[in-house]
Amino acid sequence: MSKRPLILVTNDDGITAPGIRALIEVMNGIGDVVVVAPDSPQSGMGHAITINSTLECTAINVDGGQQKEYQSSGTPADCVKLAINELMDRKPDLCVSGINHGSNSSINVIYSGTMSAAVEAGIEGVPAIGFSLCDYRWTADFEPLKPYIDKIVRNALEEKIPSDVVLNVNFPLRNQQDIKGIKICRQAKAHWVEKFDKRQSPMGKDYYWLTGEFINEDRGEDTDEAALAQGYISIVPTQFDLTAHHAIQKLNTWSFEE
Amino acid sequence: MSKRPLILVTNDDGITAPGIRALIEVMNGIGDVVVVAPDSPQSGMGHAITINSTLECTAINVDGGQQKEYQSSGTPADCVKLAINELMDRKPDLCVSGINHGSNSSINVIYSGTMSAAVEAGIEGVPAIGFSLCDYRWTADFEPLKPYIDKIVRNALEEKIPSDVVLNVNFPLRNQQDIKGIKICRQAKAHWVEKFDKRQSPMGKDYYWLTGEFINEDRGEDTDEAALAQGYISIVPTQFDLTAHHAIQKLNTWSFEE
Repeated sequence: MSKRPLILVTNDDGITAPGIRALIEVMNGIGDVVVVAPDSPQSGMGHAITINSTLECTAINVDGGQQKEYQSSGTPADCVKLAINELMDRKPDLCVSGINHGSNSSINVIYSGTMSAAVEAGIEGVPAIGFSLCDYRWTADFEPLKPYIDKIVRNALEEKIPSDVVLNVNFPLRNQQDIKGIKICRQAKAHWVEKFDKRQSPMGKDYYWLTGEFINEDRGEDTDEAALAQGYISIVPTQFDLTAHHAIQKLNTWSFEE
Repeated sequence: MSKRPLILVTNDDGITAPGIRALIEVMNGIGDVVVVAPDSPQSGMGHAITINSTLECTAINVDGGQQKEYQSSGTPADCVKLAINELMDRKPDLCVSGINHGSNSSINVIYSGTMSAAVEAGIEGVPAIGFSLCDYRWTADFEPLKPYIDKIVRNALEEKIPSDVVLNVNFPLRNQQDIKGIKICRQAKAHWVEKFDKRQSPMGKDYYWLTGEFINEDRGEDTDEAALAQGYISIVPTQFDLTAHHAIQKLNTWSFEE
């Protein structure tokens, strides 16, 4: 690229999260950066959008960096819609989301606000990447990730991400010298087994906390879970055409006549 | 099936919506019904789950029918998790979600609480179907849909839905005699172009309403949008493995070396 690319940065942990600060720092070295991110944590929001209430959006400056920043009361997907359709002068060359505090590998992609922001950008025709680190702590160390993020983003800008595909990038929780490299993977087949922790409020009303255990049923060596377990960074190309094309033939054998 | 199937019913418009009442009525004719649905409208919630706050859940009876019913403060995906892992004595034979007041065809599947409930059931190994009517009105007429829902559900119970696939069923807004039949389809490639309606509060603070225009870029005759436009009921087999398998080869040509 001859001119500096225009890069939209967002996340789901909120605009002050250390993960998005690390991502902004790397992006400032590559292009002109506009940040539009939630004003509070939005983990687990999936692809929620705000259609029955209003959205607030305010220009702010969190860390004195060279980027433009806005915080919004909306979901991650709302932030991307606001950025592309209202706040930015032109369509961005790339949208990056994260770095998420916690894994978005395998089935977690479905629940992830980080990835739904990237998917929303993809739907609107903007190349997009979600970045997540397998470490839920607010104090997670994002330093070892920065050279890899730089490489992945420069590839995406130069080589182009295939159309209607967004990248789901997950980093293993390892020191820099123990990260083995990058693997292109498929999404592992996995699910959560929920346990509901049932309690009673001081007023005598039952309520629940959702907790759960992650079950990976997939022994495939080509999955994101396998790559992460071996110390690789996983990249899963992710699509938003959800059609199960392989199932169409079988469904056409169903009989709907009297 | 020799014994009556156990059917979980949920939705995203809330437990008192006319759409879920119509669905419960049809399901009561087929099996033993348990309803777990949001206590208020949750449209556009996508696959949001409640992980940073508590969930309430209360047994109620809305219409005096033979079904068991619970309302929850959670999202549609929460309701399915609660039902399968906490409230029901055994795993249901089927989960049906809807009938949604409004279309969930093409890209709307991504934003849909109705479909995310069905997808959540699918992830947990329960065959699932989301039903939606292309009519947003609370006063929509669900009567013409009932015989079709009955047929689709009986097929699903007898023929079995392919594994890791959930069905996205959309009904055109037509009188019964003008519905031409059922078509198995792929998801049309479409997106929303947002317009943000910017206003100022009485306190002088800017806020936005999200509005938008639906753009169908897909002229394919095999899409859900084409079927609906011609007066057919569309069924799209929908998957939750989001891997864009076709893009893996291209991404393997990227260079991540120094």
